[in-house]
Formats: sequence, structure tokens, C-alpha cells
Amino acid sequence: MKNFSTATRALRRRLGTRVSVADDALFRASFDGSKLAFPPEAVVRPRARADIAAVLALANRHGVPVTVRGGGSSLTGSGSPVRGGWVLDLSRWRRIKIDADAGMCHAQAGAKIADIHAAAEAAGWFYPPDPASKKYCTIGGNIACNAGGMHGGRYGVTRDFVLALKGFLPTGEYVEWGRATKKFSAGFNLRDLWIGAEGMLGVVTEAVLKLIPLPPARWTLLTAFADEVTALGAARALFSQRVQPAICEFLDRHSVQCAEIKTGRSVFDGQSGRPVILLELAGSVHELAEQKQTVLAWARSHASAFREAASRDEAEQLWEVRRKCSGAMFALGDSKLNEDIVVPLRNYEKFARALDRLRASSRLPIPTFGHLADGNLHVNIMYHRDNHAEYLHAEKAVGELMKTVVALDGAISGEHGIGLAKTPFLRIQHSPAQIKAMRAIKTALDPRGILNPGKMFEVFKVWEHPRLKIDLPWDHK
Amino acid sequence: MKNFSTATRALRRRLGTRVSVADDALFRASFDGSKLAFPPEAVVRPRARADIAAVLALANRHGVPVTVRGGGSSLTGSGSPVRGGWVLDLSRWRRIKIDADAGMCHAQAGAKIADIHAAAEAAGWFYPPDPASKKYCTIGGNIACNAGGMHGGRYGVTRDFVLALKGFLPTGEYVEWGRATKKFSAGFNLRDLWIGAEGMLGVVTEAVLKLIPLPPARWTLLTAFADEVTALGAARALFSQRVQPAICEFLDRHSVQCAEIKTGRSVFDGQSGRPVILLELAGSVHELAEQKQTVLAWARSHASAFREAASRDEAEQLWEVRRKCSGAMFALGDSKLNEDIVVPLRNYEKFARALDRLRASSRLPIPTFGHLADGNLHVNIMYHRDNHAEYLHAEKAVGELMKTVVALDGAISGEHGIGLAKTPFLRIQHSPAQIKAMRAIKTALDPRGILNPGKMFEVFKVWEHPRLKIDLPWDHK
Repeated sequence: MKNFSTATRALRRRLGTRVSVADDALFRASFDGSKLAFPPEAVVRPRARADIAAVLALANRHGVPVTVRGGGSSLTGSGSPVRGGWVLDLSRWRRIKIDADAGMCHAQAGAKIADIHAAAEAAGWFYPPDPASKKYCTIGGNIACNAGGMHGGRYGVTRDFVLALKGFLPTGEYVEWGRATKKFSAGFNLRDLWIGAEGMLGVVTEAVLKLIPLPPARWTLLTAFADEVTALGAARALFSQRVQPAICEFLDRHSVQCAEIKTGRSVFDGQSGRPVILLELAGSVHELAEQKQTVLAWARSHASAFREAASRDEAEQLWEVRRKCSGAMFALGDSKLNEDIVVPLRNYEKFARALDRLRASSRLPIPTFGHLADGNLHVNIMYHRDNHAEYLHAEKAVGELMKTVVALDGAISGEHGIGLAKTPFLRIQHSPAQIKAMRAIKTALDPRGILNPGKMFEVFKVWEHPRLKIDLPWDHK
Repeated sequence: MKNFSTATRALRRRLGTRVSVADDALFRASFDGSKLAFPPEAVVRPRARADIAAVLALANRHGVPVTVRGGGSSLTGSGSPVRGGWVLDLSRWRRIKIDADAGMCHAQAGAKIADIHAAAEAAGWFYPPDPASKKYCTIGGNIACNAGGMHGGRYGVTRDFVLALKGFLPTGEYVEWGRATKKFSAGFNLRDLWIGAEGMLGVVTEAVLKLIPLPPARWTLLTAFADEVTALGAARALFSQRVQPAICEFLDRHSVQCAEIKTGRSVFDGQSGRPVILLELAGSVHELAEQKQTVLAWARSHASAFREAASRDEAEQLWEVRRKCSGAMFALGDSKLNEDIVVPLRNYEKFARALDRLRASSRLPIPTFGHLADGNLHVNIMYHRDNHAEYLHAEKAVGELMKTVVALDGAISGEHGIGLAKTPFLRIQHSPAQIKAMRAIKTALDPRGILNPGKMFEVFKVWEHPRLKIDLPWDHK
């Protein structure tokens, strides 16, 4: 890894105590949720915009890599400073202001999603994107990977709620894309180009988010099915009736088994080990009363059993199952590849069959759960890292999974992004012309290549890098 | 204007009858809704993707400008081939396919918005963006300028409904951005970079659009107010109650007067000459029943009078007023500058006062109407083109209007884009760093500068160019 000590000395002269080179600070900034660790030379905690401009100016002068960091919970390595250099830590930029009249939230990049949820709800508004790591991840990180969550099918993903962004070009110039308005059609749309660019095209310091009215009522239904193909076909039958649940979570039988082992009780009495779909409707009381009838009729004709939550408490118990299943999977292996692929609705059953073939060929447990209303399924390839055979099978299985989803007209990532971990698969998803266009944009905006280098386009051999043996809060172990 | 006759001969050899150089074809392709006319050398009507690739390859080889054309209804000149060259006419690429299970529409670039609406509604789905020119304009053009319409406040604009795009890079390579899925987080987001890029960064041939369930019921209310400031303050009070009308249209007293002169009857009996707000709620029958009570209570405390439509026919009569007012304005002048500015909610009243000052200083009628739920107001500066004093006043008034909206944290365009007409104001909206970044992207993707050159960034002296004296269907005269 290149040494930037001259530049780092200049940085410390310029920003003083805002720059840390202490071992523990460098260690904590060396990895993200991928647990792929690369030590930076300095961590900068800017206090003002001018500090960020100064960091970027120095980085451009000396060619120093700069990796922006929020909660550090990315699962792909997009937050790991793979080329060393400096980490720009915006986790203290966490101011949140709700404009209750306009239904908008002004949030600094380091604001946590759970805090945005709470602030919006206190004002009667709702910010739907809800990654599982919402207590830890920041809006800046969510913008970087265009994060989604359980509400994506009905309400959309981060991109659908960003009205405006403020921040810095890689060259260090302050810019604003869009305004706090719901329409803006003046000039090229760099706001959306920044969304999902994984911190490679600019530094986001602030976002204006669109909010929607908080649904006054919710209703939860747990349904069990004979098998995965039946469950997925049933989901399609539901959507074709123009029903849009706020949440529609699928747990295959393997995920259900994990949850049952973990909790010591069955997810659905009498339906033990069967795949389930957990549905939530949201809206006005009267609206729900109407939709419930449609959904119950659907459940009667497709599910092997169903149970509606009689109260918020009971609903909470049902959701508990969904939350537990991810952490519970570590009973199947000490390592998990959580692949956030997307499959179009029409190919759900084909995908379920392909997954079964993958389980057979890899001889690995691959519990799968996820968001049926948008086809974003979390395929969890479990293995023991010290078991060489499992390790090799896992590596091969990921590659086959990615080819399968692209062949089914899907996406290799729905909400995590590419980072380091998915770089081997970018060329399955995108043609050479598409990648050439992306790289041309990168060079145009970041001629020195200082912002988050080594990500997305350069193939990273993830299997040659040991991952840190560390538990992180969002592992939910 | 440069001559490209060698290239045009090569084009005709290559594409035969798909290329027209007939005078009437060249004339019809020489202008758009801006009526700023510049003759092209050839019009190409491609039959297959390979034709488009061939056009772009030749254009790059010979440096020929290529302007893509759909319905030709742009109001900014973004569709006028200002540098000559070739017009690529996609108006016959109009296939529409509804995926009724997934709630998606696959549309070729030349599909008309009204046809997309009809196809979606026939399947119980709804595509909300609805520019006034919807019977004429195409989805390709709507993507080019990120068109909006009356539903923007609640549902969003074109960008919010585009899931995937297919088409060509300026260099002639076929690309696909995104998939027919609601989540996609793999690689830089060129899909959204193309949206609003006014045909300067790529040629869109096909789009996958997200649909939402068709609301089963609608309810219309007409409200009149003492004056504009009262009306705009009332709108803010309504939104602060978390009510999101599907439509919330404002007509200032000048627009109302135009409609009354045109139709010979008052818009609202007993409220003649007063500003009105026309509201539409949409949703399930029960949902509307709840919301109606809130809206009626609001009307009682803010409006000078209100009337709800007792039937769809009566509602249609109320909407008729809204549709008539735009064409009716030609009684005030033979020329109209329809400026689609955006103002944030909190500055509505300030803007109303600024408009009154503008009317006083310009001594021109400036009837204003528009979409209150997203702040996108159509400010119509009316003048007689042969009256030199009015002409000069109009030119000055537009400039002052643009400075005002940007000073109020708004946008110089909410749905029309920049084209030629707004090029003098781009630098009011965007800083030099922002424009430099946009131009860097243009150069990166279109190194020969062939796609729609002369737009957006180069200042076009619109007041030195006579506009065609011609009536177009979407003028609604």
C-alpha cells in the first residue's frame, strides 16, 4: 500500500486535532461490515465545510485516496479504505430538521436512519427506507449504496426520497444538486448520479428527503405455505390483484428452521419448517378494512395456514421472527455471504428451483429471505471459514448465483451495492460499453482518482483476503 | 450553419428510404413547441436498433449533430435542431406493453403519454405523470425533460416512475440501465443521469415504467379565495395537515379572468375574478370519505366559497375551467412565455407579492396557474410580439422572474427543462463548479459533441430569433 506520510503531515498541520492517527482510530476506520480491513493513514473528523474542502484539496495535490465513512455498516467493503490514505468520517454530522409543513427532512450525512424515522414520525410523517442496520447506518451511506429495506416494493428506495443533495465534487468544489422542491428540471441530474455511486463521485454532506404522511393504521398477517414454489406463486397472485402491502417478507423453510432452532419454538404452530410470508398492510383504518378482505380471501385460497395479529403486541411477536432469522443463521456456519440479489416477479418460481439446485451442487445451507414486493431476496450462503471444502463451495456458489439472477433478468445487487465484494460480478451485470461509460464519468469528475479508489470497477479477489474475526452490532448474532 | 452534405449522402446510401430530405419533412422537424426553427439536412425514421447505431456511427465519423425527436412538443427548443444536421425521429417507436402482474409498463420511446395512461388504466393500473400535452408528447420526450404535470406533488414526476432504460450512448453503443425491477443497486446510475438530460447524453429507445394501483374513486372540490396571498397560505395550511391531494391546481385572478372572458361565464358564481384552487382527492371510497371531512373543514375556515362536484360530469366541468385558462390567455397577447418555475412551499406568499411587483414594473399581464402541491407554477408572460415596448418588457420580466425564484430557493424549471429558451438563466441556478461538472460529463460521454449540440450550456439569444407564426395543437388556443 502506498505511503502518503508527507501529505498526512500537511493534513495535520492544516486541520490539527480534527485529524487522528491514533492506532485505535485507524483500526476502527479500517473496515466496514464486510470485515475486509485496510489501515488508513489518518482519520479526519471535519467540523465545517471548509475542513472537507481542505481535505479534498490536499488529497488532489498529493494523490491521496479519500474514503468517506458514516456508520461503517456497508456489507460490500465500499467503506473499507482498500488503498489506504485518509478516511473522512462524517458520523458526527448528524443534524436532522423536519419541515412539517412541506413534508421534508433536512439531514446531514451522518444522521442515522432510525433517528430520521423517529424525527419524521414525531411530526406525523414517514420516511420509508429501512435497512436492517437502521440503528447504525447513516443517510450518507444509504445514499451511497441506494439502500432499500422492507418497504421498497410499495414505497421505493432511498433514491425515490432524495430531493436534493449538498456536498463536494472530488476536486473539492462545493455543489448543490436540486432544491427542497418536488420538481427540478434544470441541468443534468447529478443528484441521482451521486445516489448509488458508493462515494466515488462526490462527498455528500447534506440531503433533503421527501416524507409521506404516516399511515395511521397497520395490519399484520402471517401465512405459511406448502413449499417455496407455492409461496412465491401465491405472492404473484396477490400482487396481480393490485394489492400493495407496505411490507411483504418471505422466509424460506431454511430461514424458518434457523429461527426455530434459535428461539426454541415454532414460527407458526402446526406449520413448523414451512416457508412463510409475513404481510403488513398500512393505511387509514377504513382502507385497511377493505384491503384485509381481499388479502384474507387470497390467504384462504393459497396458504396452508394463516394467522392475523390481533394486536400490535402480537404483530410485534410475528416481526420478531423475521428479525431473528438472519442472526440465527450463524448456527449453520460461522461465515455468511448475504447476497442482496433481485429477481423479477415473473421469474420467482424459476429462481426458487435454481436455488434448490445451488444447494444441491454446493452442499451448503443457503437460507433465503427477503422482500417479495420488489424481488429483492437475501440469499445467505453459510459456510465455516476454516473448512476448506466449504470455503471453495461458497466461492463457487456466489458466482453461480450471480449468473443465475442476471440470466433471469435480475440484478446482482438491490440495495448493498458493489463495493469490493461484488466487483467480480459487475461484468456479468453490465456490458463493456456500460462499464466504459461509468468509468468515463468517474474520470471526468475525479481526474486524480482520489475518491474511494479500488472499488466497483477493479476486480477485488475477496477470497484471497481474510476477513476480521469480529462481531458487529448489525450481525444480529 | 455547417453543411454536412457528404455525410448525408453516406447516410442515404446506408439507410435508403428511412432517410427523408423532402422539404416538408425537413420543415416539420425544424422546430418544436418553442417555434424556434432551424432546418436539419435529413430526417431519419429508424426501423430497427441497427439503424440508430448506424446513424450515430456516421454522425460521430463526420461530426454531424443529431437531435432526437418524439412528439416535438417541447416548449424550450430542446427539440429544435439548432445546429442543423440530422433529426432522429422516434415517433413511430410506439409499442406499449403492460405487465399487469408486476405493475409495470414497457414502452418504446415514441409512445404517447395518453396512450400509456389508457393502456395502464385498462389493466387497473395508473401512470401518474400527465403533462398538459399528453395527447401529443412521448415518453422519450418526457424522460428527456423529466416531465411532471398535475400529479407531481403526491405521486412524483417522470423520474420517479422510470425503472429501466434501453438505448444508445452518443458513441453509438447499445446499453441498458437498470432492469424491470424495483430495486437495482449495481454500478453508477446512468439511468437517472439520462433522465432530464434533454437528449444530450444518450438516445432512449425504450423505458420500463413503474405503475401504481388505479385509485378507485375521485372527489373534486372548487374553492375561491379573497386574494392570491390568502389562497397560497391556505394551501400551506392544508398540506401541513398531512393531506396529499392527487391534484391541487391554483388559478390566480388573472387566469380566472382569462377563462371567464373565453367562456363567457363565471368560473365560480358569485366569486367572479377571484383566485381559485381546484382540488382532487383520489383513493378508495372509504379513504375519500375520511379525507373529505378534513378538506371541507379546511375550506370552511379558509375559502371565501367552495363547491364540491356532485358527480363526475360536474367535476369534468370544473376541470374544463382549468384546461381552458391556458389557451384563453392569448386574448391578452399573441405571444406567451410559459415559465414553469418552482417555489418552495414556505415562500409561496413572498412569491405572490414578487409577481405583483413584476406585473407593475413590466406593465404586462402575467396570469399564473399551476401545481400547488409541488410548487411548480406556470407564470405566463403575455405580450404582443410586434409591440416593441411589450417585447422589451417581456424579455426583462423573464430575467427578473428567474432571479426571484432562485433567490426564493426555487428552480428555474420544474418540468420543461432548459433547451434553448432557458440557457440565459442556467448560471443563475447553477454555480460555475456545477456547470463545469455537467460539461465534463457531456464531454466524457459524447466526445464529438454530436447529440443535441447547442443546448443547455451555450447561451442562446432567444430574443434575437423570430419564432414561427404557427398554431400547434398543444397551444390549446
